[in-house]
Amino acid sequence: MRLRKIKNAKEKLEEYNRIIKFEPLEMKGNWKQYFNNDNPIYLEIGMGKGKFITDNALKNPSINFVGCEISESIMLKAARNIDPLTIKNLLLINVNASSLNDIFDKNEISKIFLNFSDPWPKNKHAKRRLTSEDYLNIYRNILIDQGIIEVKTDNRNLFEYSLIKFNEFKFKYIELSLNLHQVENEDIITTEYEEKFKRLGNIIYYIKVEI
Amino acid sequence: MRLRKIKNAKEKLEEYNRIIKFEPLEMKGNWKQYFNNDNPIYLEIGMGKGKFITDNALKNPSINFVGCEISESIMLKAARNIDPLTIKNLLLINVNASSLNDIFDKNEISKIFLNFSDPWPKNKHAKRRLTSEDYLNIYRNILIDQGIIEVKTDNRNLFEYSLIKFNEFKFKYIELSLNLHQVENEDIITTEYEEKFKRLGNIIYYIKVEI
Repeated sequence: MRLRKIKNAKEKLEEYNRIIKFEPLEMKGNWKQYFNNDNPIYLEIGMGKGKFITDNALKNPSINFVGCEISESIMLKAARNIDPLTIKNLLLINVNASSLNDIFDKNEISKIFLNFSDPWPKNKHAKRRLTSEDYLNIYRNILIDQGIIEVKTDNRNLFEYSLIKFNEFKFKYIELSLNLHQVENEDIITTEYEEKFKRLGNIIYYIKVEI
Repeated sequence: MRLRKIKNAKEKLEEYNRIIKFEPLEMKGNWKQYFNNDNPIYLEIGMGKGKFITDNALKNPSINFVGCEISESIMLKAARNIDPLTIKNLLLINVNASSLNDIFDKNEISKIFLNFSDPWPKNKHAKRRLTSEDYLNIYRNILIDQGIIEVKTDNRNLFEYSLIKFNEFKFKYIELSLNLHQVENEDIITTEYEEKFKRLGNIIYYIKVEI
């Protein structure tokens, strides 16, 4: 949990119905219609307070973005920061990643971002990691051919695990860094976590794969 | 170059003809006969002063080891440390790794070790890295089916490059560590370099792949 639970978050979320989609199951296969264009759709799973996806949406108006977050309190925090009049290419969904097959059709997504995902360090919880087999099968289903997955994390064990799983699934490594911020690069859009870890001098790992 | 060049190293090497094989081309396809047993053969490419391979040979008498080193001076240093009466399962060859196809037959090697190889940091020298395509093709040729390659290095760029190349060649990741010595493990046989880097607190990267 990244921030204190907000009381009645679920009810409070309803105010933000211009940015949050509450019936995502109805959207399956219809996302392009919702965005009202044919632009590719990028999905961030576990968007947290939304800095990364909002910055991305502002910087890339010809791409549509969907931010997925399971926690209502965190989702509320993100929604409060987004002005739907300014950002028309961004939509949020408050769902569990394991249900993504019910929300997106085959080939509906072009790229998936997994930023600083929960590492679930215990082996008995490995299945909950967002790069475990069941999730990779979901991603393979909703991504286009040669779709992209990008992972950033400061958790070494999660990164090692992800490299092994991507290799096992024969995903093609496109780009890899075992110390992303060694060289300052203005083009890298960061998350809230990442800014903190950069300041602390933590190593941040990065990989981009093609399915 | 890891140590000062020794004068007349080539001639001095000849004293060590019980441990160094000077006509390795004649050995192709005949290595098991030389070792006089059917044990698997493990090859270290760039063995340096030989601590790793000697420790390995002593610890694993039912495996044969071949140490390859291109520098005559370093080879001499290694040969001086090995007692051929005590260590019968180890042989050295003073050759360039690019000639390994001429020295080993298909399927003659079970495992290859690449320890702290020269990183060749410049892009224009990438072909000289021991995990570049031409070398991986050689390894694939001389290794048995499901043969193993193990890499240890403290060089981040070389390691990133190697991960990408192994993935490209569809080698299967068996084990991976982005900080090998975080937990002290007595079973890890170290090189001279590694001992120094451990003391300095450098990160050591490790991967074991199956071809």
